[in-house]
Amino acid sequence: MPPRPIPAAAPDAAADTIIRLGRRMDALGWVPATAGNISVALGDGRVAVTRSGLHKGLLSRDGVMVVDAEGRAEDPSLRPSAETLLHCGIYRRFPGTGAVLHGHSVANTVLSRAAGDALRLRGYELLKVFPGLPTHEGAVELPVFSNDQDMPRLQRAVEARWDGSAAVAPGYLLRGHGAYVWAADADAALARLEALEFMLACELAARAPGAVA
Amino acid sequence: MPPRPIPAAAPDAAADTIIRLGRRMDALGWVPATAGNISVALGDGRVAVTRSGLHKGLLSRDGVMVVDAEGRAEDPSLRPSAETLLHCGIYRRFPGTGAVLHGHSVANTVLSRAAGDALRLRGYELLKVFPGLPTHEGAVELPVFSNDQDMPRLQRAVEARWDGSAAVAPGYLLRGHGAYVWAADADAALARLEALEFMLACELAARAPGAVA
Amino acid sequence: MPPRPIPAAAPDAAADTIIRLGRRMDALGWVPATAGNISVALGDGRVAVTRSGLHKGLLSRDGVMVVDAEGRAEDPSLRPSAETLLHCGIYRRFPGTGAVLHGHSVANTVLSRAAGDALRLRGYELLKVFPGLPTHEGAVELPVFSNDQDMPRLQRAVEARWDGSAAVAPGYLLRGHGAYVWAADADAALARLEALEFMLACELAARAPGAVA
Amino acid sequence: MPPRPIPAAAPDAAADTIIRLGRRMDALGWVPATAGNISVALGDGRVAVTRSGLHKGLLSRDGVMVVDAEGRAEDPSLRPSAETLLHCGIYRRFPGTGAVLHGHSVANTVLSRAAGDALRLRGYELLKVFPGLPTHEGAVELPVFSNDQDMPRLQRAVEARWDGSAAVAPGYLLRGHGAYVWAADADAALARLEALEFMLACELAARAPGAVA
Repeated sequence: MPPRPIPAAAPDAAADTIIRLGRRMDALGWVPATAGNISVALGDGRVAVTRSGLHKGLLSRDGVMVVDAEGRAEDPSLRPSAETLLHCGIYRRFPGTGAVLHGHSVANTVLSRAAGDALRLRGYELLKVFPGLPTHEGAVELPVFSNDQDMPRLQRAVEARWDGSAAVAPGYLLRGHGAYVWAADADAALARLEALEFMLACELAARAPGAVA
Repeated sequence: MPPRPIPAAAPDAAADTIIRLGRRMDALGWVPATAGNISVALGDGRVAVTRSGLHKGLLSRDGVMVVDAEGRAEDPSLRPSAETLLHCGIYRRFPGTGAVLHGHSVANTVLSRAAGDALRLRGYELLKVFPGLPTHEGAVELPVFSNDQDMPRLQRAVEARWDGSAAVAPGYLLRGHGAYVWAADADAALARLEALEFMLACELAARAPGAVA
Repeated sequence: MPPRPIPAAAPDAAADTIIRLGRRMDALGWVPATAGNISVALGDGRVAVTRSGLHKGLLSRDGVMVVDAEGRAEDPSLRPSAETLLHCGIYRRFPGTGAVLHGHSVANTVLSRAAGDALRLRGYELLKVFPGLPTHEGAVELPVFSNDQDMPRLQRAVEARWDGSAAVAPGYLLRGHGAYVWAADADAALARLEALEFMLACELAARAPGAVA
Repeated sequence: MPPRPIPAAAPDAAADTIIRLGRRMDALGWVPATAGNISVALGDGRVAVTRSGLHKGLLSRDGVMVVDAEGRAEDPSLRPSAETLLHCGIYRRFPGTGAVLHGHSVANTVLSRAAGDALRLRGYELLKVFPGLPTHEGAVELPVFSNDQDMPRLQRAVEARWDGSAAVAPGYLLRGHGAYVWAADADAALARLEALEFMLACELAARAPGAVA
C-alpha cells in the first residue's frame, strides 16, 4: 500500500474545513436535523470527524473530534457520528482519500428508497467529475445498500460489493439514508457531492410518474 | 406530575431564541406571510410566544410576549398568536417540553389536505430523531386533524386523540394549516421539525401522481 | 371618495421600502431577469414606482421614480415600469391602498397559463390574510386575465371584472405574466403576496398530473 | 465586420464582474460542482474567461484568465474552461456581444435530454428579454445540440444551425450539458439567463407527466 499523499493538517484547520463544508451542505438542504456527517483525513492515519447529534450546518470547532483509523475516539468522552466506521472503511480501502461527505437530500432519499441495488447515471456532462470517465458518454453505476443500524455488518456489505466490482465509483447510497462520496481533498469531495446531487435531482425530476409510489 | 426540568430563562434570552428559530424557519420557507408561531417555556409555568400578525422571519424582541400556562397574556394590551392554546396544551400534557414550533410548508400543507386522520412515515433514517424509535425500521403515525378556528374545540380533539393512543408522536398536522412539533429545548424541536419536513418533502416527491388532486 | 389615509412619505423612505421588498421578492425567486415591479403610495396622490428594465432584486435608490396618479413621470427623462398603469388603476379604485406588488413565480406562471378566467383557492389557513374571510372555510376567487401589451385595454378589462364582481379579491393574475396584490402598506402587501404564492405553490404541487400540459 | 462597441475593460474589473455573476449563478443553483463558465469581452478582441476545474460560485481573481479571439491563453501555464471555444465562436459571430454565460440547471438538463433539436417557448411575458420579440405573443425557437467533447466539431454544428436559421436566438442548449446565453453586457446576459431558466422551470413544472422518462 503506498504511503498516503495527504499532508498533515492541524486539527483546527481540519475543523474549519469541516465547518465550511457543513455550512455549504446546509445551504443546499443536505443536512436536515442532525443528519449527515463529514470527515477529513489528518495525514497521519487519524481522521477529524463530526461529533454525533449536532446540526452539521451550525458546527463550531468543538463539534469536530479526532478518531484513529478504526474510528476510536482520541478523547473517550466524545462520541463520533454513528457512521464513522463507514468513513474509516473508505479511508482504509482507498489510500489517497482526503475527505468523506455524507448527506441526505430529498433526491437521494426518494431515489434510493425506490431503487434496487444500484442507480445508473448516464449522459450527463457532470459525470466528468467521476474518475475514469473522460466523457459524458460513460455511465456510473452507483451502489445502493439497504440501511442497517449495525455498522460493522453494513461495512462488510459495502466491502463485499467493492470486492465484486471491476470499477468502483467514489460514492454510494444507503436506502432512505443518504449518499456517501469521497475524493482526494475536501473541495474535490464537495464537487463530487454537488455533481451527484445535481444528477439525482435531474433523475427525480425526469422519472416516469408512478415509478416511485 | 413531576416538576418541569426546564431551567428558568430570562424573557430576553427566550425572545432571542425565538427570533433565531423564526429566521431559520423563514430561510427554509416555513413561515410565509404571518403564518407559523414559536414558543419557549420559561421554566416557571409561563411561556414566551410570538405575537399575532407578525412575520415570524422578521421578528424583533417586541414581537415576543409572555403568557401563563392557560395562554393568558401577562400584558393584556398584547395579543398572542391565535394558536397559543395549542402550545399550552402541549406544555400541559408533556412536562419537560421546552419549545413548540408550528410552521407551514408546501409539503405539510399538500399532504395534510390529502390525508385521512394520520400520515404514516417509515423507513427513513431520520425517524431516529423521534423518541422511542431506536432504528429506521420503526414507523411514526403522525396525527392529522381537521382545521378549526375554535381553538378550545380543536385542543379537545387533539387531547382525545392523545388519550386514545398507545404511543404519541411529538408532533401533529392540521389540515391545510401546518405542522406542530415539540421537544425538550428549542434546538431539539428545530431538529424534529427539520426531520419531519424532510420526510414529508420526500413523501410529496415520491407519491403516486394523481393521489392528490 | 374618502381621503386616503396613507401618511405622506419622503421618496427616499419609499425608495428604501421598495428596495427592501425587491430584495425579499428576489430571495423568493419572484423577480427573475427584469420582471416584476413594486410601488408605494406617497400619500399625496403621487406614487413611487420601480423604473423599467432594472433587476428588482438589485435596486438602488435611483431605480425608483415618482409618477402622478395617472402614471405620468415627474421627471420626464425616466421611464416607469411598463405596468405602472395597472398600479395606478389599483390605487384609484381602492383608496387606502398603500403598496402594490407584482411578481413572476413558477407557480403563478404555470397555473395562470393553464387556468380559465379565475383560480379558486379554498381550505387554506392562509386565506385569512385576505380581507372579508374570517375563517379558512371561505374561498377566494382570484381573477385571471389574458396578457396584453396594451396597458389601457388591459386595465379596462380588469375594471370590467371588478365592476361585475360582488367581492373583489385584493389580487389578480395575468396569464403567463405574474401576480398583482395590494394592501394598506408595504408589509401587508408582502404578507398577501407570500400567502398567495404559498397557496399557488401548494396548488401546483397537488394538481392532477396531466391537467397542465 | 463593424468594430466592436465594447469599451476596453481592465482585466481586474472583468474578473470582478465574473466573480459577481458566478456567485449569483451559484445562489440560483446553476453552477454545481465545477460546472458552468463565464466570459466577458475586454473590448480589444481578448476575452476574460473562467479557468477550468474551479467552482464558479467560489471564484477569486486568479480564477479568471485572458484568452485571445481564438481561445488561446495569454499565459500558457493556465487552462481555460473546456468550452472556451464555444464562447469565442459566439463573440466572433455576434459582434457587440459583451458577455457569455453557461450554466447547468435541473430544468435545462432534464428538458434538453428529452428534447429533439429545439425547444419552443411561447406565451411568456419574459420572452420580451429576447431581441426582436416586442410582445409575449412571439415564440423563441431555442436550438438544442447533442453534447460532444470535441469542441471544434461541436462549434461547427452550432454554426451550421446558425447559418440555416432566419432568426437566431441569443442562446442554445447542449443536451445534458446546460445552457448558453449572451448579450451586450454582463447584466443583460444575466437577465437573459434568468429569463430563460425561469421559462424552462415553468416548462418542466407544466409538462405532461411521462413525457420525460
